[in-house]
Amino acid sequence: MKKKIKNRIISENVIIDKFLNKLNFNKDGTYGFKNDAAYIKLVKNQKLVVTSDSITENLDFFKQDNPKSIANKIITINLSDLSAMGALPYAYVLNLFLPKYIDWQWLKIFTNELLNLQRKHKFYLLGGDLSKSKYLTINATFFGLAKNNYVFTQNTLNLNDDIWITGNIGDSFIGLQILKNKIKLNDSIKKYFVKKYQYPKPCLLGFKFNKFSKSIKDISDGFIGDLKKMLNMKYGAKIYLKELPLSNNLKKIVNKKLINLNQILNCGDCYQLIIISNKKFRDKIINTAKKNNLKISRVGKVIKNLQIIDDSNNTLNIPREFDHFL
Amino acid sequence: MKKKIKNRIISENVIIDKFLNKLNFNKDGTYGFKNDAAYIKLVKNQKLVVTSDSITENLDFFKQDNPKSIANKIITINLSDLSAMGALPYAYVLNLFLPKYIDWQWLKIFTNELLNLQRKHKFYLLGGDLSKSKYLTINATFFGLAKNNYVFTQNTLNLNDDIWITGNIGDSFIGLQILKNKIKLNDSIKKYFVKKYQYPKPCLLGFKFNKFSKSIKDISDGFIGDLKKMLNMKYGAKIYLKELPLSNNLKKIVNKKLINLNQILNCGDCYQLIIISNKKFRDKIINTAKKNNLKISRVGKVIKNLQIIDDSNNTLNIPREFDHFL
Repeated sequence: MKKKIKNRIISENVIIDKFLNKLNFNKDGTYGFKNDAAYIKLVKNQKLVVTSDSITENLDFFKQDNPKSIANKIITINLSDLSAMGALPYAYVLNLFLPKYIDWQWLKIFTNELLNLQRKHKFYLLGGDLSKSKYLTINATFFGLAKNNYVFTQNTLNLNDDIWITGNIGDSFIGLQILKNKIKLNDSIKKYFVKKYQYPKPCLLGFKFNKFSKSIKDISDGFIGDLKKMLNMKYGAKIYLKELPLSNNLKKIVNKKLINLNQILNCGDCYQLIIISNKKFRDKIINTAKKNNLKISRVGKVIKNLQIIDDSNNTLNIPREFDHFL
Repeated sequence: MKKKIKNRIISENVIIDKFLNKLNFNKDGTYGFKNDAAYIKLVKNQKLVVTSDSITENLDFFKQDNPKSIANKIITINLSDLSAMGALPYAYVLNLFLPKYIDWQWLKIFTNELLNLQRKHKFYLLGGDLSKSKYLTINATFFGLAKNNYVFTQNTLNLNDDIWITGNIGDSFIGLQILKNKIKLNDSIKKYFVKKYQYPKPCLLGFKFNKFSKSIKDISDGFIGDLKKMLNMKYGAKIYLKELPLSNNLKKIVNKKLINLNQILNCGDCYQLIIISNKKFRDKIINTAKKNNLKISRVGKVIKNLQIIDDSNNTLNIPREFDHFL
């Protein structure tokens, strides 16, 4: 429907009844959103994995972005964290901080996309909170169930373990550079990258590796930064630069020197997984990925020296550590 | 310690290590906040009650407020929701949206007060998320355990049921009016009300009434508005105005006509409970309250007529329905 209903008064009740209610799937414990709280009922001794992430206007997306893209982002960043714990999504709590420009049409597109993603990945909306705000901010707290009750950590690893990455890295970052007019490319290739930025696809197969790995983390702040967190100042890593998984489109851009590899190593938002695993499981990892139609690349190994270095022993630095608060 | 450390660079890691880490009580599943997610392990068939609430600068508190007061508010509004479900607090997830003015001293006072409240009410910090923001916004998602697995709803009630309120209402609202310079009072009485606004005390005894009531809600948006939600357009209510629980200080102000009762009926943020219960449990309710040193007042009953009326059959209107989005 193209007609945009303007100036329609949107009250809290309308937002809940017309837009959010469809997302609770009539599950027990949601009370049709008529209660101020909800409940989850779990079976025996199950571990409930919990993660919470937020996105904010001007930082993680732009005001003019399609609400469909914004819906994708808030879900993707959280699903990606669940996957890194080896969990499958179960339910979520959504907190919306809405500025005045949010209208009927925005809410419709946004919540319809949430519905699509909920159906696709099989989770429901448990409850949440609505607040007024000057800028659009969205927070979601996700609940996941760990497969066989096995939960990964980020820091359980040993010397000489293999370092793997799922999928490709860097495409989303190029999309952002295009939107910021920092890279100029032709239209078709532009479209490819912008889509990768606006509709990130998390790797949700973390749980498939629970027999071969103890340490998984999703790449949200950049490969080097996230890997550093995993190494936890106890180990370093050697990275095989040639093995970094780049899309063919990205390879072209790197070859043209429009972007350097260091930027790719430190860019966030690709929501692929770093998996660290004993090298005796190398074949198992490759076979599991193959069975699940997942690209996986062995990009390095854990070393004793606390640095992260490349094949030629050059240190791979984080230009400025990615930190929201510096 | 009075010394204010200015201009100290506060990074995400510093906030986590120096301020937040003390709040996880080293519980399993928090991983010392080194993971992007956490887990809760529940015993068989337990219901995990979940609620989420946010507070924002200029709406729910002011920039210059003591961080101790702000910590109290984010915890109180959530504990109050848990109590209305009959649950006791277990753990929480904290999302902080921090503007530049948040400094070392602010974080210290804020997190120390969280620690006090956690120790007092026995819950721990499970995880969370840090974001930059122009205005201070704090969101918390709380997890509670329902006593005997019994969870209240807000809407399970019948004709002629009694309507009860715990504690007093209205004091916090007067505190806000004083801070907004809308009411002028002498210093000692001013202090009383401002404290009620800045350090609200939730009624956490909801679970004590689980044998005598099915419907409980906390008063967050105003007694009439919250009661209306409970009546759910299926019933009305008669309110005995003289039975409304007002503090002696508030009675003086009402008698001086500095405020009218209609404002008290519609003011929020007192975090007391509305309990609706069959009149056969009247004595049990009174005895339970007495045993727990809790003030409780029978302020009305459920009627057929869909209106909310007073003893003289005058309709008690909500002047303008409290709604964040109108």
